[in-house]
Amino acid sequence: MNLAASVLTGDRLAISRLLSQVENDTPEGRLALSELFAHTGRAHLIGVTGAPGTGKSSLVNQLARYYRHPKAGENPRRVAIVAVDPSSPFSGGAILGDRIRMRDLAGDSGVFIRSMASRGSLGGLASATASVVQVFDAAGFEVIMVETVGAGQAEVDIARLAHTTLVVEAPGLGDEIQAIKAGILEIADVLVVNKADQPGVENTERALRSMLDLAHPTPRIFRHHGKAEAIPDPAGSPAQPLWITPIQRTVSTEGTGIPEVAEHIARHRAYLQTTGDWQRREHARIQNELETLLRETLVARWRQSTGDDAYQQVLDSLYDRKISPHQAVEKLLASE
Amino acid sequence: MNLAASVLTGDRLAISRLLSQVENDTPEGRLALSELFAHTGRAHLIGVTGAPGTGKSSLVNQLARYYRHPKAGENPRRVAIVAVDPSSPFSGGAILGDRIRMRDLAGDSGVFIRSMASRGSLGGLASATASVVQVFDAAGFEVIMVETVGAGQAEVDIARLAHTTLVVEAPGLGDEIQAIKAGILEIADVLVVNKADQPGVENTERALRSMLDLAHPTPRIFRHHGKAEAIPDPAGSPAQPLWITPIQRTVSTEGTGIPEVAEHIARHRAYLQTTGDWQRREHARIQNELETLLRETLVARWRQSTGDDAYQQVLDSLYDRKISPHQAVEKLLASE
Repeated sequence: MNLAASVLTGDRLAISRLLSQVENDTPEGRLALSELFAHTGRAHLIGVTGAPGTGKSSLVNQLARYYRHPKAGENPRRVAIVAVDPSSPFSGGAILGDRIRMRDLAGDSGVFIRSMASRGSLGGLASATASVVQVFDAAGFEVIMVETVGAGQAEVDIARLAHTTLVVEAPGLGDEIQAIKAGILEIADVLVVNKADQPGVENTERALRSMLDLAHPTPRIFRHHGKAEAIPDPAGSPAQPLWITPIQRTVSTEGTGIPEVAEHIARHRAYLQTTGDWQRREHARIQNELETLLRETLVARWRQSTGDDAYQQVLDSLYDRKISPHQAVEKLLASE
Repeated sequence: MNLAASVLTGDRLAISRLLSQVENDTPEGRLALSELFAHTGRAHLIGVTGAPGTGKSSLVNQLARYYRHPKAGENPRRVAIVAVDPSSPFSGGAILGDRIRMRDLAGDSGVFIRSMASRGSLGGLASATASVVQVFDAAGFEVIMVETVGAGQAEVDIARLAHTTLVVEAPGLGDEIQAIKAGILEIADVLVVNKADQPGVENTERALRSMLDLAHPTPRIFRHHGKAEAIPDPAGSPAQPLWITPIQRTVSTEGTGIPEVAEHIARHRAYLQTTGDWQRREHARIQNELETLLRETLVARWRQSTGDDAYQQVLDSLYDRKISPHQAVEKLLASE
């Protein structure tokens, strides 16, 4: 049986091997991904991001445990966790606490945890993460949580992979951190205020609520008692359901608020499916993947067709500032 | 006089106009950049990065002030500050405190401050920042400081632009933040412990020193009393000078330690020039710029030569998962 076929059966060793292949972008990995593509598109992809110190990892662990042991009447689901650390571009090692996690969820064959560190290439991490997610999706994991540290561009790009994005906050992380969140808030589908047993939780929640109001002005909505109602469009078209980003308090070390977070996630999934946004996000992701691959392939083919000498000559005139980068590109592409 | 020529005279209005052009990547901006390229390569590019809450902006302000009013015997230098906020991908507005800065350095024609926010495109911010830096370089700014918030991939890519990279830390930012620094430390040429009047500064400095020792093992160096000596190579070749990343305490709100930071920066510049690393960094940057531009141009040309219908057809089979992304690329490029 080849690697792709073994992955489809859920074989953990095969999954591990393929994950290493796609992380290193080997030909074997690319081929297997291509074979698996038809079997993807079933998982719910959940992005979890937020500043350091908010307790994201512990929240992700608790959610995983909840999906494995849900409330009565719901089936347990298979869960993959992809822990991404973009701040570690050179080390190749992931800092996020795998061993701690393993203790918590050890021995459960319905859980797979993978840590990834950036290897320094711009965009490389986001594309490697997308491939890793596809492997888990094809292998039948129904929930895939992608956890990123921080709030930079890489995190935002990775969040774009997800159907549902959780942004995790915590009380008392300081004013400048609050300011930064303004950008990341715009990608939040569910806001979690973790460590809600700590002082300052009311201030944090109030600040988040006012930032949410600024980020998503809702002229067509009345807010009262925390609920929202869509106002029918005066022109008479049926009112579209609207997603109001909920703010949920949790104390993840004690499991408090975790079923509620899972509930918000389930509601968001239903919302995406009702409105057609689920499909739109899928299509945007697939198109993005196609264009990245196209770009890489075009450049690789061009480099193969151009002599090293000609390239070095142009580079040398550029180093001496005899020509500009634009003139260099024209020169290189004119000889095609 | 055209825009490029006006920028060369240092005309502030022309600089502002060109900065907007290059940020928006207009044809006029590209043309002017191309004309200006021959006049670049003179500025010292200093990257300043670090976690939120470390007081980077205030440090950058103080350094700018120092370069404008240096110690006796040194000439004042013209300073540009580029404040980049990668965490703000959608807003288009920069959060970093421009107005506060303006008060501090207001009315000094030898200082130019520009804020930039990411517009959401992966890699777009790094390339726009490179163009903005070129404008300042051509306009005769001798010191260009590029300040980024955070420690993600975008910051690392922007730091790669710089000749000299300062990483700013502060006491008491917590354990998880410490762990994150392991990656960013590897790009530090000078480490600044700001807010050094706050409790915990000894712990922070000690932690940084041990992380530096881990990141840069120095088998050929004796460290004693804080100084380092290169040991001559036993094979008899002359010993290369080695850069030992210094750790400098500052209290930037009071100006404490600022002349010392400037001194480390000057020493680093001399070190780069002695070893040839200055030129190597210049060449790496220019080659990177060429390759980015080549990639963009190849994709743009290919898109022009391909019909929208053919592209959409392939995209549709991809959406239906009838073909994989790799097969889609093969199909699209086969029709060339």
